[in-house]
Amino acid sequence: MGSNSIGTEFVVTCFGESHGRCIGAVIDGCPAGLPLTVEDIQNELNKRLPQNQEIISTRREEDIVELLSGIYEGFTTGAPICVLVWNKEINSEDYDAIRHTPRPGHADYPARIKYLGFNDNRGGGRFSGRLTVAFIMAGAIAKKLLKLAGIDIVAYSTEIGCVKMGTSLSFEEIKEKTYQSSVRCPDLKASKLMEAAILEAKNEGDSVGGIVECLAFNVLAGVGEPIFDSLDAELAKMIFNIPAVKGVEFGVGFEAPRMKGSQNNDCYAIQDGEVHALSNNSGGVLGGLSSGMPIVIKVAIKPTPSIAKEQKTVDMLEMKDTIIQVKGRHDACIVPKAVPVVESSVALVLVDQLICAGLIPKVLGVEGVGEYSDIAEEN
Amino acid sequence: MGSNSIGTEFVVTCFGESHGRCIGAVIDGCPAGLPLTVEDIQNELNKRLPQNQEIISTRREEDIVELLSGIYEGFTTGAPICVLVWNKEINSEDYDAIRHTPRPGHADYPARIKYLGFNDNRGGGRFSGRLTVAFIMAGAIAKKLLKLAGIDIVAYSTEIGCVKMGTSLSFEEIKEKTYQSSVRCPDLKASKLMEAAILEAKNEGDSVGGIVECLAFNVLAGVGEPIFDSLDAELAKMIFNIPAVKGVEFGVGFEAPRMKGSQNNDCYAIQDGEVHALSNNSGGVLGGLSSGMPIVIKVAIKPTPSIAKEQKTVDMLEMKDTIIQVKGRHDACIVPKAVPVVESSVALVLVDQLICAGLIPKVLGVEGVGEYSDIAEEN
Amino acid sequence: MGSNSIGTEFVVTCFGESHGRCIGAVIDGCPAGLPLTVEDIQNELNKRLPQNQEIISTRREEDIVELLSGIYEGFTTGAPICVLVWNKEINSEDYDAIRHTPRPGHADYPARIKYLGFNDNRGGGRFSGRLTVAFIMAGAIAKKLLKLAGIDIVAYSTEIGCVKMGTSLSFEEIKEKTYQSSVRCPDLKASKLMEAAILEAKNEGDSVGGIVECLAFNVLAGVGEPIFDSLDAELAKMIFNIPAVKGVEFGVGFEAPRMKGSQNNDCYAIQDGEVHALSNNSGGVLGGLSSGMPIVIKVAIKPTPSIAKEQKTVDMLEMKDTIIQVKGRHDACIVPKAVPVVESSVALVLVDQLICAGLIPKVLGVEGVGEYSDIAEEN
Amino acid sequence: MGSNSIGTEFVVTCFGESHGRCIGAVIDGCPAGLPLTVEDIQNELNKRLPQNQEIISTRREEDIVELLSGIYEGFTTGAPICVLVWNKEINSEDYDAIRHTPRPGHADYPARIKYLGFNDNRGGGRFSGRLTVAFIMAGAIAKKLLKLAGIDIVAYSTEIGCVKMGTSLSFEEIKEKTYQSSVRCPDLKASKLMEAAILEAKNEGDSVGGIVECLAFNVLAGVGEPIFDSLDAELAKMIFNIPAVKGVEFGVGFEAPRMKGSQNNDCYAIQDGEVHALSNNSGGVLGGLSSGMPIVIKVAIKPTPSIAKEQKTVDMLEMKDTIIQVKGRHDACIVPKAVPVVESSVALVLVDQLICAGLIPKVLGVEGVGEYSDIAEEN
Repeated sequence: MGSNSIGTEFVVTCFGESHGRCIGAVIDGCPAGLPLTVEDIQNELNKRLPQNQEIISTRREEDIVELLSGIYEGFTTGAPICVLVWNKEINSEDYDAIRHTPRPGHADYPARIKYLGFNDNRGGGRFSGRLTVAFIMAGAIAKKLLKLAGIDIVAYSTEIGCVKMGTSLSFEEIKEKTYQSSVRCPDLKASKLMEAAILEAKNEGDSVGGIVECLAFNVLAGVGEPIFDSLDAELAKMIFNIPAVKGVEFGVGFEAPRMKGSQNNDCYAIQDGEVHALSNNSGGVLGGLSSGMPIVIKVAIKPTPSIAKEQKTVDMLEMKDTIIQVKGRHDACIVPKAVPVVESSVALVLVDQLICAGLIPKVLGVEGVGEYSDIAEEN
Repeated sequence: MGSNSIGTEFVVTCFGESHGRCIGAVIDGCPAGLPLTVEDIQNELNKRLPQNQEIISTRREEDIVELLSGIYEGFTTGAPICVLVWNKEINSEDYDAIRHTPRPGHADYPARIKYLGFNDNRGGGRFSGRLTVAFIMAGAIAKKLLKLAGIDIVAYSTEIGCVKMGTSLSFEEIKEKTYQSSVRCPDLKASKLMEAAILEAKNEGDSVGGIVECLAFNVLAGVGEPIFDSLDAELAKMIFNIPAVKGVEFGVGFEAPRMKGSQNNDCYAIQDGEVHALSNNSGGVLGGLSSGMPIVIKVAIKPTPSIAKEQKTVDMLEMKDTIIQVKGRHDACIVPKAVPVVESSVALVLVDQLICAGLIPKVLGVEGVGEYSDIAEEN
Repeated sequence: MGSNSIGTEFVVTCFGESHGRCIGAVIDGCPAGLPLTVEDIQNELNKRLPQNQEIISTRREEDIVELLSGIYEGFTTGAPICVLVWNKEINSEDYDAIRHTPRPGHADYPARIKYLGFNDNRGGGRFSGRLTVAFIMAGAIAKKLLKLAGIDIVAYSTEIGCVKMGTSLSFEEIKEKTYQSSVRCPDLKASKLMEAAILEAKNEGDSVGGIVECLAFNVLAGVGEPIFDSLDAELAKMIFNIPAVKGVEFGVGFEAPRMKGSQNNDCYAIQDGEVHALSNNSGGVLGGLSSGMPIVIKVAIKPTPSIAKEQKTVDMLEMKDTIIQVKGRHDACIVPKAVPVVESSVALVLVDQLICAGLIPKVLGVEGVGEYSDIAEEN
Repeated sequence: MGSNSIGTEFVVTCFGESHGRCIGAVIDGCPAGLPLTVEDIQNELNKRLPQNQEIISTRREEDIVELLSGIYEGFTTGAPICVLVWNKEINSEDYDAIRHTPRPGHADYPARIKYLGFNDNRGGGRFSGRLTVAFIMAGAIAKKLLKLAGIDIVAYSTEIGCVKMGTSLSFEEIKEKTYQSSVRCPDLKASKLMEAAILEAKNEGDSVGGIVECLAFNVLAGVGEPIFDSLDAELAKMIFNIPAVKGVEFGVGFEAPRMKGSQNNDCYAIQDGEVHALSNNSGGVLGGLSSGMPIVIKVAIKPTPSIAKEQKTVDMLEMKDTIIQVKGRHDACIVPKAVPVVESSVALVLVDQLICAGLIPKVLGVEGVGEYSDIAEEN
């Protein structure tokens, strides 16, 4: 498998560059028979758009999704789905200036070493956060499939710029309020403080990071594989592929080492004739398999590396020290944009694992040949 | 690729069960021409053996490594290397008793759902920490290859049972002292306190967890792939495959969200005619590529789930609540045993990535045909 | 890896449908630093165009190649290359008529069973020979890389409609004359007879098949892997993926069973200080490895299944026997179009294997950073 | 995936060498719940044993199968199955003599170039036909699974040393008589002539080849994937991995080019309320999918390269011409041993494809937890 593909059965291949012609994804292995429209994908992608441009983002990229293949008469066909957005005309002159001057916190330096200078460095090229558009487009399809399987996923900001979300909210409240907040924090009081923290950093020519939490409900027990394809390992891999992620934990995560076994173990009881765990310290994963409890993941996002402040760096042509001031308009905090990306990433892994486990079939919806037109009408 | 295999070029396939006949690994893609003996692997595997049985482990498993294939006249041949240890006679009666009674904190419950009861549940079967013997055996080969590439890896305990390592030590000190400590903590004062914490938990019929840090030195910049095969993503995946891991972070990890961009970014300067980073908050990974700085990973290990204390669970045959008291002699802390496993896991990913990047060739050491016997003599 | 991808290091993913929006390919793993233009690909694709429309094809598809990603300043960047052609407006009404009536010799029937009717059946959908446009586009890149490695590949028709190529030609003659022939047969006398055979079949509302031979020169000995990734196995797999292929042989192929071992074995001698084989019955592959001799492959192509003659088939909605007469203008012989597809397929496998073997590096051409612009000017 | 593994869901990894300690296979992805004993595998492996040592083989290798993992209480567990045979003490001195002198028709020369002399050359090492023991051991498990799916496979010799099988036999006759023939030809008259042809070649110090045909019955229509994972492509790949195979065809194969479309197309009719094809020229594969008709494959096997006759070769240490006379006792015809290998290879591909298609589930046989012991008793 190429290094720009991920997944076992539901395989996503990503192409395109930040300032190239487009950002695209080929999704291979989507079951046939799923009703799918461009709007399904566009709606998910729009979650990246800032609601409050002053605070969150300084440019509003209105990407228009196009579907190039794999859909016929409103349904997926079982063939690979190519989906893309065309990049707008972008002034890339700024990047020529810094071609030989790696920006701290970016991949500029190792990329230059790796590709001997052949990589497209405009806007970070393949290393740009803009590539996460592909995660969201593919994730939109994954989420539609998961919905059929009864699985619901939500991600939201729990911490931005040292402001932590306070109150504990129900799943319904989180779903309802997250996108009311321009920083994607369903605790709307904390959300205001987070906005202020971002604005303050922005005014200083600086940036802040944060923590995103993701919950997945109704994943049956037993999804994942022991040893080398653990569910948590697959999830962590996908999430660490998101630019700016520096840590991932499940359940109590880095608190687990500070607990006794008797505190950390999730005990069982029979409730309503079924086995239930009495706590969820494990975050829904045991021995690499889903436990049947909600999957709980926390993701550490570093502060935006592109800042207006002057920073020390080097001129690699002349091999001398220099100072860089990153130009262009950059988000002082990328956490709000990362929220739908984390959500999509979790969806992509779960749908792949469910197909692998045979819990989502390769062809959906109909048992007999020739009945699909009825389905088409109903949908 | 099967779900019990991992790697792209240096592929490890793991077989065997905790109480089955053996634990084995097939390593496919090891370059030809590497001098390799059973002792190379045995020595790494012996790192799992407890030095202080009272404190760390209650049984001393002396596994004898056997090499079944892939070696000829003392060198790897380019063919798959099968390596295994035979399991000793083990009393598995204890496990029949708990066949229908999932142990809290273990994979018993989801595994039963997944396999409809067909899985070998003795000693946890495929979910047992004993399977990490395969990680270490394969890792021993990886470490020999990395040594040729000048890369040095070390893992050690930084925290056990709420006791944190205090002093900051040099790489040399860490390498020297880690295995002087029965808990694999090179801060020998902290090590004593950690031992005490473990003993205390043990006497209470309870257990403790901890944090393992792993450092990899001399990894060239540019190793890894953007988007879906990031170096950090691959490392995190491998590490989360180790049983009991609940969190992984690179560099400042979960502290990154609390830093400003100007604090978190690692600036550059020319030193001795080369580009150097002035800090390593990124932990050696930028945009999914190695940065050229040391790779720094922290791993959260949960407390041993097998504890002597009574715990609530269910009888799944009769579907009623019950109480379990896990029998057998179990480690009150698995962190010391996890140390060489983390080290091996990092080695496995790095060697795979270096082969992928063409930085380790497919055949080692000799340019002309027929000269290998000289090499054989020299080694 | 998704089922619409192939390759280990040089991975091609194909998307699009015969009457969908486009036919495209994503090539992941192409080394950085290869000079590449749209024309390089367009020129290869034009080899599918008929020179003599009366004889070979009844429609002239002028596909215009577009490069969407992976190229910057005239060089490959190491990022995935997305290349596509947009389909022209096509009248798909004909296909609605046969939606429930499988055409003999086509995949209509098994595809309907497989996808429960969700597949895009217009023009054969994913099963159309038109999909081989993707093979050629990806193959064009492969051929450029192979040229750098000194490897030359040529395919040509040796038999069409019972007319066999007579004279034995040199590699140079084959290269020179193949595309002078409208049926891609470098024996121009035989070519005329083949044209006549096609015309005769066409006039009868029927079709003919043929045999394509492919030669690859200058492949070093030792490319391929024993057991499960044999060079011949990989080549055969890729070639059988071409629609209408029914047989593949290497060297003497199906004649080998009729030879004695002493006749079939290729003996060795020293010539000009190097080891040479005295014959090439093996067709350049021994034990799954390239032998250093030219690779010689013969490919059996069945007659075009779409014919004007009436054929027995069934109506699957009403489950009754019926008669079909395939409408539209179809090639009475697809062998000429298959010639560049076989050539491309062989190129794709060889380039993948050479990269796997480390014989083509991951970054081409330059040793130092910043020198690529000189290269750009030279090319 | 390593180059010594094959399959997508039912993945076989092969290890061991001809004169090493063992020949083994790890089968990853076998569904849980399949009753499996060592005898199931031993019986298939015994098909390689010669019935008539004078004619077919000069040594009788009685390999004893051992199961190392993946079985518990008589059932597969879903964990990887490691199965091996230990090699007997073999005198490898003969091979030292020819270390630098490649045997014509063997992989000796390209292997030496590839591995720079590090490969284990004793008995051909990884390139030996003995490695097909792994194909058969894994195939035995595949065949058990296929039997549950109602699929029956049989392979047999149709041609050896220019003697062709005459009469056309029913599937039942083929199954009954193939193993009554020492050359695995169910036409027992032809079988006698084939024996004579082999004996004659043997007495001349020479060898003969042959053709193996394989039939697979009851494969549902729609198995396989278009474009890059065609069923015929996967089958051809697996079969070309068998040493000594030089050609593969489906159905009429290399005769297809000599037929008109109207002759070659398999028409349809309704029979007993179901769609049936009126002929099977396609050999059961259309557009890369199974057609529902029997799969028919012909495989060309070259004459044994190891012959007693003197052959020209080179001394690669001294780089001079020399003469080789291959010592040891070798089969004058390997076709009879290839028969069960072809059968196993087809089984391995089919079972993998059926699991991929969801037609064989990941856990077999039982719906509820805890019922497996009843199943165990019944079996």
